[in-house]
Amino acid sequence: MIQIAHIETPFKTKFGVPRQAGLTEYEARVVFEPEFRVAEAVRGIEEFDYLWLIWQFHLAERKEWSPTVRPPRLGGNKRVGVFATRSPFRPNPIGLSCVRLLRVEPGPVLVVQGADLVDGTPIYDIKPYLSYADSHPEARSGFAQSAPPAALSVADPEGLTDALPADLCNALCQSLSQDPRPHYQEDPDRIYAMLFDRWEVRFRVADGTATIISVKKC
Amino acid sequence: MIQIAHIETPFKTKFGVPRQAGLTEYEARVVFEPEFRVAEAVRGIEEFDYLWLIWQFHLAERKEWSPTVRPPRLGGNKRVGVFATRSPFRPNPIGLSCVRLLRVEPGPVLVVQGADLVDGTPIYDIKPYLSYADSHPEARSGFAQSAPPAALSVADPEGLTDALPADLCNALCQSLSQDPRPHYQEDPDRIYAMLFDRWEVRFRVADGTATIISVKKC
Repeated sequence: MIQIAHIETPFKTKFGVPRQAGLTEYEARVVFEPEFRVAEAVRGIEEFDYLWLIWQFHLAERKEWSPTVRPPRLGGNKRVGVFATRSPFRPNPIGLSCVRLLRVEPGPVLVVQGADLVDGTPIYDIKPYLSYADSHPEARSGFAQSAPPAALSVADPEGLTDALPADLCNALCQSLSQDPRPHYQEDPDRIYAMLFDRWEVRFRVADGTATIISVKKC
Repeated sequence: MIQIAHIETPFKTKFGVPRQAGLTEYEARVVFEPEFRVAEAVRGIEEFDYLWLIWQFHLAERKEWSPTVRPPRLGGNKRVGVFATRSPFRPNPIGLSCVRLLRVEPGPVLVVQGADLVDGTPIYDIKPYLSYADSHPEARSGFAQSAPPAALSVADPEGLTDALPADLCNALCQSLSQDPRPHYQEDPDRIYAMLFDRWEVRFRVADGTATIISVKKC
């Protein structure tokens, strides 16, 4: 399996990355590796609203596989079969994400929305989304029937995120509202730090609110 | 990338395999490789109506990749970018199919419907279908906006397919009606042979009708 592209997103570390595709609205860029920078390879792709990205969970590789995992959606304390989840910890660390294609820029670069990938994630394949074969709106989807509701309110009493461009500010708030904390962490004094685009964002969580306490350029 | 499972389907060769998932109704069996025959690994999977199979185009590997391909849906004479198609001939020979989960049998074996895979195809990963993230019924899908219409009528004047079980007979007719011939073949005298389950099925195509001329057990 060879890397054909990688993605550029504001999420510089796993912490804060949305836990599924389509949950945030920032623009990400799929940049082909030099061998695949051929305009013809994406000819006609703009006729599709959505694309599949098949990619490598490059930060989640483990030597051994576990038959069961504990999905965050189940509170992190119930085990289900790994093939009944989209967990990154699976025998082959392959990720699958449906993203919206916004436009094709010269390069070619595919500008997409809704990616749930950490910055720099290697991409193995890009396929067009075919609604007749891929869309099953009525499908029962087990413990993840609907998108996770916003778990937290986001407070920025000092207006610290004014430093960020509007679209990034929006994406940051979406990420925080989905509660990026590991499960079982309920310490209101704990300070979390997230590398987001060129900023280090620090926040606390108490009483269902994530409060931003610093935004520093790094 | 390791093979975790393989699929058992009636399509013994590439010829006749449906060109996308969901177009036929036969039952296929996803059989785990010995190391992955662990019941817990699929615990909870029956709560999902559909599954993603990520698999290897093991009969379509080529040393060189081509930036453009000619999809059958466009008549086989128009080139589009490989990443704007689901063609098997791509830099990484990875296939992606959404199949319906019918039931889980001991093994575990996943019995699925709608697979577009040749018998014995290696499977790399199985993921649950999440309707909130994966379903976009309104998506523009370029040259493949809707399922291909049945291209051929199927005639069996001698009742030869009576030898097959009803579900296989149905799947065979669905496959033939989708016109499995390579493009540009319009010779009414040519006899095509297809290995289907334990049968060799021979047919001719003329005037929009596929006529079955022999069904032999092999």
